[in-house]
Amino acid sequence: MTIKFGVIGAGRIGKVHSATIAANPKAKLAYIADAMPQAANDLAAKYGAKVASVEEIMKAKDVDAVLIGSPTGFHAEQIQMASNNGKAIMCEKPVSLKVSTIEETLKVVEKNKSTLMIGFNRRFDPNFAEAEKRIRRGDVGAIEIVTVISRDPNPPPAQYVAGSGGIFADMMIHDFDMARFLMGEDFVVVNALGSALVDKAIGEAGDVDTAAVQMQTASGRIAVITNSRRATYGYDQRFEVHGSKGMIHAKNVHNSTVEVLSGAGYVADPIQNFFLERYGQAYANELNTFIAAVESGNRDPKPNGHDGLQAQKLAEAATESWKTGKPVKVS
Amino acid sequence: MTIKFGVIGAGRIGKVHSATIAANPKAKLAYIADAMPQAANDLAAKYGAKVASVEEIMKAKDVDAVLIGSPTGFHAEQIQMASNNGKAIMCEKPVSLKVSTIEETLKVVEKNKSTLMIGFNRRFDPNFAEAEKRIRRGDVGAIEIVTVISRDPNPPPAQYVAGSGGIFADMMIHDFDMARFLMGEDFVVVNALGSALVDKAIGEAGDVDTAAVQMQTASGRIAVITNSRRATYGYDQRFEVHGSKGMIHAKNVHNSTVEVLSGAGYVADPIQNFFLERYGQAYANELNTFIAAVESGNRDPKPNGHDGLQAQKLAEAATESWKTGKPVKVS
Amino acid sequence: MTIKFGVIGAGRIGKVHSATIAANPKAKLAYIADAMPQAANDLAAKYGAKVASVEEIMKAKDVDAVLIGSPTGFHAEQIQMASNNGKAIMCEKPVSLKVSTIEETLKVVEKNKSTLMIGFNRRFDPNFAEAEKRIRRGDVGAIEIVTVISRDPNPPPAQYVAGSGGIFADMMIHDFDMARFLMGEDFVVVNALGSALVDKAIGEAGDVDTAAVQMQTASGRIAVITNSRRATYGYDQRFEVHGSKGMIHAKNVHNSTVEVLSGAGYVADPIQNFFLERYGQAYANELNTFIAAVESGNRDPKPNGHDGLQAQKLAEAATESWKTGKPVKVS
Amino acid sequence: MTIKFGVIGAGRIGKVHSATIAANPKAKLAYIADAMPQAANDLAAKYGAKVASVEEIMKAKDVDAVLIGSPTGFHAEQIQMASNNGKAIMCEKPVSLKVSTIEETLKVVEKNKSTLMIGFNRRFDPNFAEAEKRIRRGDVGAIEIVTVISRDPNPPPAQYVAGSGGIFADMMIHDFDMARFLMGEDFVVVNALGSALVDKAIGEAGDVDTAAVQMQTASGRIAVITNSRRATYGYDQRFEVHGSKGMIHAKNVHNSTVEVLSGAGYVADPIQNFFLERYGQAYANELNTFIAAVESGNRDPKPNGHDGLQAQKLAEAATESWKTGKPVKVS
Repeated sequence: MTIKFGVIGAGRIGKVHSATIAANPKAKLAYIADAMPQAANDLAAKYGAKVASVEEIMKAKDVDAVLIGSPTGFHAEQIQMASNNGKAIMCEKPVSLKVSTIEETLKVVEKNKSTLMIGFNRRFDPNFAEAEKRIRRGDVGAIEIVTVISRDPNPPPAQYVAGSGGIFADMMIHDFDMARFLMGEDFVVVNALGSALVDKAIGEAGDVDTAAVQMQTASGRIAVITNSRRATYGYDQRFEVHGSKGMIHAKNVHNSTVEVLSGAGYVADPIQNFFLERYGQAYANELNTFIAAVESGNRDPKPNGHDGLQAQKLAEAATESWKTGKPVKVS
Repeated sequence: MTIKFGVIGAGRIGKVHSATIAANPKAKLAYIADAMPQAANDLAAKYGAKVASVEEIMKAKDVDAVLIGSPTGFHAEQIQMASNNGKAIMCEKPVSLKVSTIEETLKVVEKNKSTLMIGFNRRFDPNFAEAEKRIRRGDVGAIEIVTVISRDPNPPPAQYVAGSGGIFADMMIHDFDMARFLMGEDFVVVNALGSALVDKAIGEAGDVDTAAVQMQTASGRIAVITNSRRATYGYDQRFEVHGSKGMIHAKNVHNSTVEVLSGAGYVADPIQNFFLERYGQAYANELNTFIAAVESGNRDPKPNGHDGLQAQKLAEAATESWKTGKPVKVS
Repeated sequence: MTIKFGVIGAGRIGKVHSATIAANPKAKLAYIADAMPQAANDLAAKYGAKVASVEEIMKAKDVDAVLIGSPTGFHAEQIQMASNNGKAIMCEKPVSLKVSTIEETLKVVEKNKSTLMIGFNRRFDPNFAEAEKRIRRGDVGAIEIVTVISRDPNPPPAQYVAGSGGIFADMMIHDFDMARFLMGEDFVVVNALGSALVDKAIGEAGDVDTAAVQMQTASGRIAVITNSRRATYGYDQRFEVHGSKGMIHAKNVHNSTVEVLSGAGYVADPIQNFFLERYGQAYANELNTFIAAVESGNRDPKPNGHDGLQAQKLAEAATESWKTGKPVKVS
Repeated sequence: MTIKFGVIGAGRIGKVHSATIAANPKAKLAYIADAMPQAANDLAAKYGAKVASVEEIMKAKDVDAVLIGSPTGFHAEQIQMASNNGKAIMCEKPVSLKVSTIEETLKVVEKNKSTLMIGFNRRFDPNFAEAEKRIRRGDVGAIEIVTVISRDPNPPPAQYVAGSGGIFADMMIHDFDMARFLMGEDFVVVNALGSALVDKAIGEAGDVDTAAVQMQTASGRIAVITNSRRATYGYDQRFEVHGSKGMIHAKNVHNSTVEVLSGAGYVADPIQNFFLERYGQAYANELNTFIAAVESGNRDPKPNGHDGLQAQKLAEAATESWKTGKPVKVS
């Protein structure tokens, strides 16, 4: 069985998913849509796909699933459209910057019993997935503290930041999902701090580039997240989970296993710097999970719409906490 | 020149300091005082010192310096007494559980121009001191995020906890000092979370055993501290400092450099489990710093009374934040 | 340009290369030959290739290159046949267990000016290639000692061993090539030791499963190789190169970056256990190098026939040294 | 009980042992002898010991044990003298550069039933001792391959080398003992290679600075040793032991646990550079072992005279193998 995909959005993330679909023997990249015709044409030509409008893709008989990689503002509407047209849906995070819009969207998906998966790709990183498997198996006992560290190699331009929804919705959203994924329990309170220390222009655009959040679950477990928009040593993606039986963590992935010893010390290679390299395997595994859900008729692959909703609630709460300087409760 | 010490307190920490003084060629352990005569006698006999009352030590001509390792409730009074008697003073943390008492005490010390050093021993750990030296030298550029992780091997008995001042004053006080030491700038706001996850009896005694704090400086820099009263893998003492030029961290100290490879994986030795082993060299270096200050007439060795005061203010603020669920400002 | 391949041999290594060819966008898997019709049929069916005899492949107009993965005894003859038919040739190591046969074969290749590459796949491992690049660049200065460590996860059956040419020709041949690759200078003397410590049946079959070789170049540089046919912790593939400016090494590749901390210590994942997983990327890079040579008309991609010859000479010398207990000179 | 020591030799190693004795609560540094009066006076003054001639120390009633740290040429004679005078003896390696002289000396020791321990200090390094303990306990199963790597930070002056007995007797002697210590079985054949690659003057002085040895036991187990007189990254002291159940190794000791991450990669501190720092604890543990033997009347603490003899036999065999280019049998 081959799943025929229509990809909405031919930008950076659309290209990633198109390449992943094209390389997957169980998938066929059938259509590409993008508001910029040139972008859609180029991507379609590269993989032998057809160019179509969003509406055409949604209605196409030879499309089983849509992959939504359009700008965030279109996600909710396109999910609903796809759902109403009987397509399976894989949508990039976030579903919407407004929690209420996500809730409406999930109602449509629920009503149509559509398959919907949200693109929190990091859950599918082989190292992170392996750690989570062991946590669920009980290897570290009852979880007490989850620490998530996420640092981008370089800050985005300040103008990007202005339209991004802010660091908590744009960047830390992944870490909120990771914290939930690892903890296995929802958070009820969020405290946030933030500063523009990396680039003053980010501060002037109304956002921060350095942020910390601490959260607590109803049973008292604690999660701590720190973010920076810049790390000179690469794309720093780590977590550690401390429990009653021990601690588990996933280390960063280095460019190679080579190490040079000299008077300067023991020098190991920098870590992978680029999200496509770091998470290439994660994107492939994510797609496989989605395809398996579509094949088997599983309408609720994880991370699902609820996961998308909860992560956005945390991002919204963190943003409010940062702005007001007060803890914010989350339902 | 030999510095003659009177040690107040023959309990666990008094024994540590007595052994360190006895092994230091520039120091002489002259007197021991303790409310329990047997404890004082045993310790004095071990090192050839004399037993005396606190008052006698304070007034003894052949005492240059007092090392205060009595219960916390006596620290402030004994510092004042030693100061009024012209002794140099090394006092275990905290000076007092009440900030106002510390402030009064420091006024006495100031008036008498006494040498006072506070026992934040971790600053003298060779690994931590080396990291701090490089941070001050600018190796990681402008500091943005300081993360301090501190986990004890085993929780104390709940009855100890009851009289300890709580985890923030009893355990995290070291981490508040470490965060200040590393950051080099004072914190203005403190957010705390806590839970009794390790031992319910600690919760019933009104304290927590798992805690997180995030703090911010006036210039926006962020520090995150997490504490647990139990770690199955040993005495976990780490930090990392992220700055504009890179990141620096100090790893844990393992029991040995031995590693065993088998089907179970690559198994490195557990980390050192006992504070005396982990910080043995730190106690020796701390004493040398104090002795050097006394010898040279430096009345303000670091960590000084102000450092003790600031750490206590943070502990008090964290305790209040944990109890009220609100951020607390610190002056 | 697409290079059309005929693959000779549908056994374990033929399957590896067939999969790699099928996945390479610049290559087409046109034909498969194998003495066992079923094996050839299965493999051809999997990738949409045709089954043919060796002779047919050698003469086929629509074959640009042959990949020889047949049993060692056929390699030399098939290289000659392919060369005489104007095909580019990639041949698994070793060209022959007899040095004189290799020399005859290389004369044919030379006369026909054929492109010939020998399958020392480890040179193409990204970690090893990166280390070698830095060595050649001079990062460790003048090389003094090369150490190569190679341990298989599990010993082969004793009956395999009997027909394998012995550990030095069958297993250590890769390490001889690696030592030459890293050293960049040929060896003139070989000392070997060996024992059957892992499986007595291997000893009874006239071979050893544990071996050490030390070699020296004309300029006095030293290489040390150790081999074991069994390592409980995985497929151990390492080297270190010590030079006048420092040391460089490539560490093993772990299954994941996950580490678990508990009373048992710090437990990192075992290393990759299976040659296909460990060297999957190396096989892909090897094929790309061969394809680039064919495309560009480079008749001498490395590792070339001379490399195959020199590695075999070292294997032969080591076998003789092991048997006689004496050092053996190599030309 | 306090053991009263006479130290013969106030040079580099005599100073090390004198400091270790002075710091040991169970030992008293009573006498120092040295052919250079100034050296003896300075060292004696530092620790409040008396200066005496070798003969006076040997006969002194208030000397329980002599520590022989004189030039190698005097060791055998002084051991015999001390033994004949009823002293316990700790002697630096090697007992003699001549195997026959060692054998004569051991006969005297045997006749007098003297306590004799040889100064192979590395056996007492806490990391190495821990590894050996686990090997003996069976943690890695039956031993198959022992690899010892030893590299000095800097080469000695060529004139030192001239009188040193050569690299195999002067430097690799420690590694021969370590290989025996780890293997637990004697070696029967030795193959050596060597070159002067670090300093041509060492070659002109008739020695080498880069050397490799492989050895085999009667049961077929293999040991490989490599030595270099220079390592830019510090004093490299490692081994690994591969057995039927797994592998154990002891890693180098870094200056600190600090690591800096930047665009240059992950930079860990260099390893300890100086033998006194690297083996300070080993010297203290060695002395404790000797003292315990004297106290308990154990006349055969390890490493004993036989260990000294066997290591020297291996050094002699390696020297011959290097010179003749042939393997040398050892009894």
